[in-house]
Amino acid sequence: MGKKRQVKRQYKKAGLPPGTLVHIGERKLESVRITVIDYDESSFREKQVSNIEDCFKFKTTPTVTWINIDGLHDVNIIEKIGKHYDFHPLVLEDILHTGQRPKFEDLDSYIFIVLMMLRFDDESQAVLSEQVSLVLGRNYVISFQEDVGDVFEQIRDRLRNAKGKVRKMGSDYLMYALLDAIVDSYFGIMEKLGEKIESLEEELVNDPTDRILKQIHNLKREMIYLRKSVWPLRELISGLERSESDFIQETTNVYLRDVYDHTIQVIDTVESFRDMVSGMLDIYLSSISNRMNAVMKVLTIIATIFIPLTFVAGIYGMNFEYMPELKWRYGYLTVLILMLVITGGMLLYFKRKKWL
Amino acid sequence: MGKKRQVKRQYKKAGLPPGTLVHIGERKLESVRITVIDYDESSFREKQVSNIEDCFKFKTTPTVTWINIDGLHDVNIIEKIGKHYDFHPLVLEDILHTGQRPKFEDLDSYIFIVLMMLRFDDESQAVLSEQVSLVLGRNYVISFQEDVGDVFEQIRDRLRNAKGKVRKMGSDYLMYALLDAIVDSYFGIMEKLGEKIESLEEELVNDPTDRILKQIHNLKREMIYLRKSVWPLRELISGLERSESDFIQETTNVYLRDVYDHTIQVIDTVESFRDMVSGMLDIYLSSISNRMNAVMKVLTIIATIFIPLTFVAGIYGMNFEYMPELKWRYGYLTVLILMLVITGGMLLYFKRKKWL
Amino acid sequence: MGKKRQVKRQYKKAGLPPGTLVHIGERKLESVRITVIDYDESSFREKQVSNIEDCFKFKTTPTVTWINIDGLHDVNIIEKIGKHYDFHPLVLEDILHTGQRPKFEDLDSYIFIVLMMLRFDDESQAVLSEQVSLVLGRNYVISFQEDVGDVFEQIRDRLRNAKGKVRKMGSDYLMYALLDAIVDSYFGIMEKLGEKIESLEEELVNDPTDRILKQIHNLKREMIYLRKSVWPLRELISGLERSESDFIQETTNVYLRDVYDHTIQVIDTVESFRDMVSGMLDIYLSSISNRMNAVMKVLTIIATIFIPLTFVAGIYGMNFEYMPELKWRYGYLTVLILMLVITGGMLLYFKRKKWL
Amino acid sequence: MGKKRQVKRQYKKAGLPPGTLVHIGERKLESVRITVIDYDESSFREKQVSNIEDCFKFKTTPTVTWINIDGLHDVNIIEKIGKHYDFHPLVLEDILHTGQRPKFEDLDSYIFIVLMMLRFDDESQAVLSEQVSLVLGRNYVISFQEDVGDVFEQIRDRLRNAKGKVRKMGSDYLMYALLDAIVDSYFGIMEKLGEKIESLEEELVNDPTDRILKQIHNLKREMIYLRKSVWPLRELISGLERSESDFIQETTNVYLRDVYDHTIQVIDTVESFRDMVSGMLDIYLSSISNRMNAVMKVLTIIATIFIPLTFVAGIYGMNFEYMPELKWRYGYLTVLILMLVITGGMLLYFKRKKWL
Amino acid sequence: MGKKRQVKRQYKKAGLPPGTLVHIGERKLESVRITVIDYDESSFREKQVSNIEDCFKFKTTPTVTWINIDGLHDVNIIEKIGKHYDFHPLVLEDILHTGQRPKFEDLDSYIFIVLMMLRFDDESQAVLSEQVSLVLGRNYVISFQEDVGDVFEQIRDRLRNAKGKVRKMGSDYLMYALLDAIVDSYFGIMEKLGEKIESLEEELVNDPTDRILKQIHNLKREMIYLRKSVWPLRELISGLERSESDFIQETTNVYLRDVYDHTIQVIDTVESFRDMVSGMLDIYLSSISNRMNAVMKVLTIIATIFIPLTFVAGIYGMNFEYMPELKWRYGYLTVLILMLVITGGMLLYFKRKKWL
Repeated sequence: MGKKRQVKRQYKKAGLPPGTLVHIGERKLESVRITVIDYDESSFREKQVSNIEDCFKFKTTPTVTWINIDGLHDVNIIEKIGKHYDFHPLVLEDILHTGQRPKFEDLDSYIFIVLMMLRFDDESQAVLSEQVSLVLGRNYVISFQEDVGDVFEQIRDRLRNAKGKVRKMGSDYLMYALLDAIVDSYFGIMEKLGEKIESLEEELVNDPTDRILKQIHNLKREMIYLRKSVWPLRELISGLERSESDFIQETTNVYLRDVYDHTIQVIDTVESFRDMVSGMLDIYLSSISNRMNAVMKVLTIIATIFIPLTFVAGIYGMNFEYMPELKWRYGYLTVLILMLVITGGMLLYFKRKKWL
Repeated sequence: MGKKRQVKRQYKKAGLPPGTLVHIGERKLESVRITVIDYDESSFREKQVSNIEDCFKFKTTPTVTWINIDGLHDVNIIEKIGKHYDFHPLVLEDILHTGQRPKFEDLDSYIFIVLMMLRFDDESQAVLSEQVSLVLGRNYVISFQEDVGDVFEQIRDRLRNAKGKVRKMGSDYLMYALLDAIVDSYFGIMEKLGEKIESLEEELVNDPTDRILKQIHNLKREMIYLRKSVWPLRELISGLERSESDFIQETTNVYLRDVYDHTIQVIDTVESFRDMVSGMLDIYLSSISNRMNAVMKVLTIIATIFIPLTFVAGIYGMNFEYMPELKWRYGYLTVLILMLVITGGMLLYFKRKKWL
Repeated sequence: MGKKRQVKRQYKKAGLPPGTLVHIGERKLESVRITVIDYDESSFREKQVSNIEDCFKFKTTPTVTWINIDGLHDVNIIEKIGKHYDFHPLVLEDILHTGQRPKFEDLDSYIFIVLMMLRFDDESQAVLSEQVSLVLGRNYVISFQEDVGDVFEQIRDRLRNAKGKVRKMGSDYLMYALLDAIVDSYFGIMEKLGEKIESLEEELVNDPTDRILKQIHNLKREMIYLRKSVWPLRELISGLERSESDFIQETTNVYLRDVYDHTIQVIDTVESFRDMVSGMLDIYLSSISNRMNAVMKVLTIIATIFIPLTFVAGIYGMNFEYMPELKWRYGYLTVLILMLVITGGMLLYFKRKKWL
Repeated sequence: MGKKRQVKRQYKKAGLPPGTLVHIGERKLESVRITVIDYDESSFREKQVSNIEDCFKFKTTPTVTWINIDGLHDVNIIEKIGKHYDFHPLVLEDILHTGQRPKFEDLDSYIFIVLMMLRFDDESQAVLSEQVSLVLGRNYVISFQEDVGDVFEQIRDRLRNAKGKVRKMGSDYLMYALLDAIVDSYFGIMEKLGEKIESLEEELVNDPTDRILKQIHNLKREMIYLRKSVWPLRELISGLERSESDFIQETTNVYLRDVYDHTIQVIDTVESFRDMVSGMLDIYLSSISNRMNAVMKVLTIIATIFIPLTFVAGIYGMNFEYMPELKWRYGYLTVLILMLVITGGMLLYFKRKKWL
Repeated sequence: MGKKRQVKRQYKKAGLPPGTLVHIGERKLESVRITVIDYDESSFREKQVSNIEDCFKFKTTPTVTWINIDGLHDVNIIEKIGKHYDFHPLVLEDILHTGQRPKFEDLDSYIFIVLMMLRFDDESQAVLSEQVSLVLGRNYVISFQEDVGDVFEQIRDRLRNAKGKVRKMGSDYLMYALLDAIVDSYFGIMEKLGEKIESLEEELVNDPTDRILKQIHNLKREMIYLRKSVWPLRELISGLERSESDFIQETTNVYLRDVYDHTIQVIDTVESFRDMVSGMLDIYLSSISNRMNAVMKVLTIIATIFIPLTFVAGIYGMNFEYMPELKWRYGYLTVLILMLVITGGMLLYFKRKKWL
């Protein structure tokens, strides 16, 4: 998956002064899409803007503003936001250099969060990831995504329809809702992977082929990758919880604790899956051994029965002048019966050895 | 086991506002059963109510009240309780979304505990789990179970008959008694699994088949699942012990410490079992290798003896005109004796190699 | 070993009120034996009493009293002691429910310790365990054992003969001496196991059989069990050291530190043994592979030499009318020489392949 | 790689008084090269000096001075620097004894850092390392390298062209920039290794040979070595961050935190690679088993078909006088048909067993 | 190695009162050798004494005294020192019971250190160990060794010739110098083991025999033993560093930190070696599999070619009266050509399968 890409990305950067704004990552869509949602308990506005400056007027309003940017390749836009909201150059760098390790940073006047939005691609049967960066200020949340399409649609609906608590709460609750949506979406990935494991396990038992070995191996890599995305989340969220930032209210902590619990559950599941996948490899290896054993048994049974018989036939195929048996009336019959007796004895022996 | 189910459950939720009350899990029984036990040292009342509102009058009484709810599918009931007892929406969500990780939360006016009640199903030879949620308030305990049937029957008896200390103590002691009953029931599971391991080990040594491999694999999964249920208990109980909640009395801490010790013992046993199960896989693999070895030896012995003999017979089956041996009076006898000598030599060689 | 038993024991208890006094464990001897040793620097009394009440008068004397109880099946006696010395019901339960995890508890007016006395049974070649519970009060130590026979005989001798420091010191030093004797006895077990490992290793290299695999497996289980008994000791003793109990004097801490060092040494040795036993399994597996390899080589050499020869013989056993070679004067000789050449070539090939 | 060398180096030292200045390591270049860069926001000077004393005048200037020494074999130079800048003898020793574990030491008047500059050598396909020692004082940084050629060229460019922040900041920022360049260069190594792993994985699946096994093994060793170089970095940088040294300014900490994040990312990647390489070994082993299986199948099919046929031919090659079949008109044809039937049956059997 | 011995030693002690002075260990030399070195910056005296009392006069002098005792079997001498210098009985016991775990104890008026002096024995190719106990007092160091011969000779030289700092510093610096010499000597062992690993690795690839398996196994045991000796050193030295003993001066801490770094480096190397040795076992196992594979291929090729040919020959060896081919003029030639064709086909098939 994204492993190779991620490494390459960082490589390009080596040597540049820190805070140099270059987008490192795949360009995933044509043009950057900017959407603003501005709300408080009584009002709600949503629009798509083509000019980032159109968003800036919301900064001073007391309402909560959520600016969502899809597409990171236009460094200019990111830079303007950075200047207007006074972000540290390294924060901008982290937003642009996708492939970051999930992390949380409290920079006094705003909180910066990077994490991974995961998606199970049914076609390639792989987990795809997209970096999501969130900046939480006193009354705004700015989210940066690599591509259009996310797991936040239901949050937008709730905002539009004033459903749930979200319209009544501040920007910190919005940030929590976004985090929650991402972590909850992991359960879907887990389910897909769980099904994959289960179907693979069944195949494994019935028909262990090379293809399955490769699939187990892929699954293992998928797990390694998932682990890298999910483990740091634990630290991230407990960091958020402990942070003494002004704009995270006491009441939001209960919700963060809930996301934390879900994260632990995801981590537990990933670890269980890892254990299961290792178990599958053991099964695969012993299935192969078992197969080899079966093949060997057939060979041994056939060879063990016929080799002595062929020898007997060989004896009476010799051309010695003085071989009295050859002249006997029932020599041929006797030999045939002898062969039957040998065969019977062999079969009995195999039965006792439980090879048949 | 419950792995797949659990993941699916959570998936359905993704995107909904937090605290949305939907029952996620299998509906295990027809109708919800509510029982109330209300007692102090001198009085005892027990009844089954059909209407949750009938329980609410007990809230203000100084006696200890234990409300037990079997069945979570009627969201309405849970919601009413939540409203009456003023539970946080996320607590209600955790009660309804079964498959939670065992945890403990101190919410000032009440304490919330989720854990797993396990049962060994003799038929499917698997460990089945049921989520039990406990809410402890100043003078009440409310327990939520997925299904009728639990390990609390003896506690009810003790309450009815005023046996033991339980009638003399507060709601915290009742909660302890419930926890203790659940943890103690784990020992029964451990025993069953221990027996299974032992019987499997015996079979393994006598007759390592594919079926046993599958059983070892199942056992391993069972262990992974058990671990997930049992490990968090440690944290849960030590959290309870350290909690500075008003309604957990000093004297109860000794008892919690005892449950803690039992939990550690269960964890130790699970870890030992894991070690043993891995050990069994090693044995299985080497048993297979040993079998293959045995098969190979038989093949080799038979082939090694008869191939040279057949060759000798082949020699004298050749049709050359000038083969003096064929004319000899004792040619045939000589060859037969030669063959016996070869066979003897081979057998001696195998004896020395310890193949026979 | 004691695994199955231990689990069963606990099972019987499930559901009973905590502190119910039932002996859970094997009844190892006919009748309970109670011995009292009462001493100070100048006086020494030792007697075996049949009635537990006879010990109680020693409680108020300023001399140090050591009451030793062998046999736990008479719950009555334990209960009387508990009442007289005012022990918590859970302490009595822990004494009676053998199979406890080693632990230490400071209950203000006395200190409670549970640990395992181990014994290597030469006959069954297994490590047997007996639970020893110690209660340390201001001027008394009460020890509970499952069976007659212990590692304390030399301490008794020292007390009788006023050898060493033990008569000059308080009850805490006596408790230390008992702990020390138990931990030191572990070194004997280690030695026995070390010898077993060494002898097994030698056999393993010379003649890897199924029996050895089983023995390695048993050793592994023994290690798992030992670990469970020994690891908690570390915590136990460091807990004792840190405890701020009144009746553990400063000067005793140096001695406890010494026992602690020994415990760590035992733990280190157990871990080393575990590593070695795993190493042995690796060796076993590769020895088997090596054997299979050797068998295969013999088969291959025999088959590879004789199959072509038999083919040649087969050629000249054909009955075609026009086979000029058959008429040649030296046809037979030529063929024999040809066969010798083929054999020589094969042998040379095997030599170069290092199969011979 | 450097393993053997490193151990030898230290060995030579054993017994010498601490702080004895001997260069331990390979002499990698002819003569020591000393370069000085002296700058502040407005001025910039860069020159190569042949005499170390020429650098000393910069010590007292308020401008930031960066002295870079390539080549450690001239102990004299190192000693002079040490005397002039008042370095502790053990610091000088650590500079000279290459093969140190990366570490950070705060010695009040200066900070000493040792770390590894890594380079992927395309020819030998191995990671080569060079020890870089940095000493940070109030307004100077002195860097010691084993050889000419480093990853700092872009920093020099930025200094020359007054690009980025580096000219505006103090010596601590310069040190950060050097650290950052080294850590960033690790990403390049990771990329190369990632590619190697990927190409090896492809080969592995297509054609598992002995050569690949050796390459996997080498990769594993490379990982062990990398880990040893990278893990201590984590501690090093978090130590720097926490250090309360006067000349590390508050503002630099954000940058150090960034390097820290990168280090964690490198460590994560190394660990993932380790996991992948172990996975590759598993695949290799099962590929071999699979191959053996395939070979065995071919052998078994051939043998199982022809051995019975040969036996039948053997029967009718016997020389009995009374073998009625031999006289039959269609005896021969019948036998040939019989043989065809046997072959057909066998093939069907193999088809059902999925061997064909 | 010393494993078995070490366990036996301790066993003898079990039951004796603590502090009983018995030498437990091998008696390695005839008579005890006592050497005293007494020095300050200006004076230096060195002599070998036959009577331990001769050393006692140095106790009160302000000069630093280093008493070195080679040989522990004369308990009397140890006891006299203990009495004169007022050592705790358990300290004396630890000195005499060789095979202790490395540790450090601060007993206020003196510091007690036990550690292992290791030596690589070229003959047995094993690491041999000797326990060294150091007692550091205000102005003395007493060292106890099991045998004559140590790694301190260069320190003695430095003392004699007033080289380095050692004559100018106190007893704590002397203790540091001794520790440093021991830890530095470990690097030599590491080098030897590294060479052994390297040479074994080469052999392994070229010719994997049983003997190499045994050597890998021995190396593994060596590593287990080394680990046990080296790991506790880390704790020991960091304990020394943190200790607030009066007679360890501030300036010495820098030096202790240096020894600490070396210890970590040794530990790192031991861990890397362990990883490498496990890797070697994997290689060994797959080499064996590869060999078996090669053997199987040869067998299969030979059998697969000749079995069908032999069958054809068998056909025409049948004695049917009506076999028209037998009468054909070119029957024999045709059959020979047919056989060549079959052989060619087979060879082509093997080529395509890459078996040739």
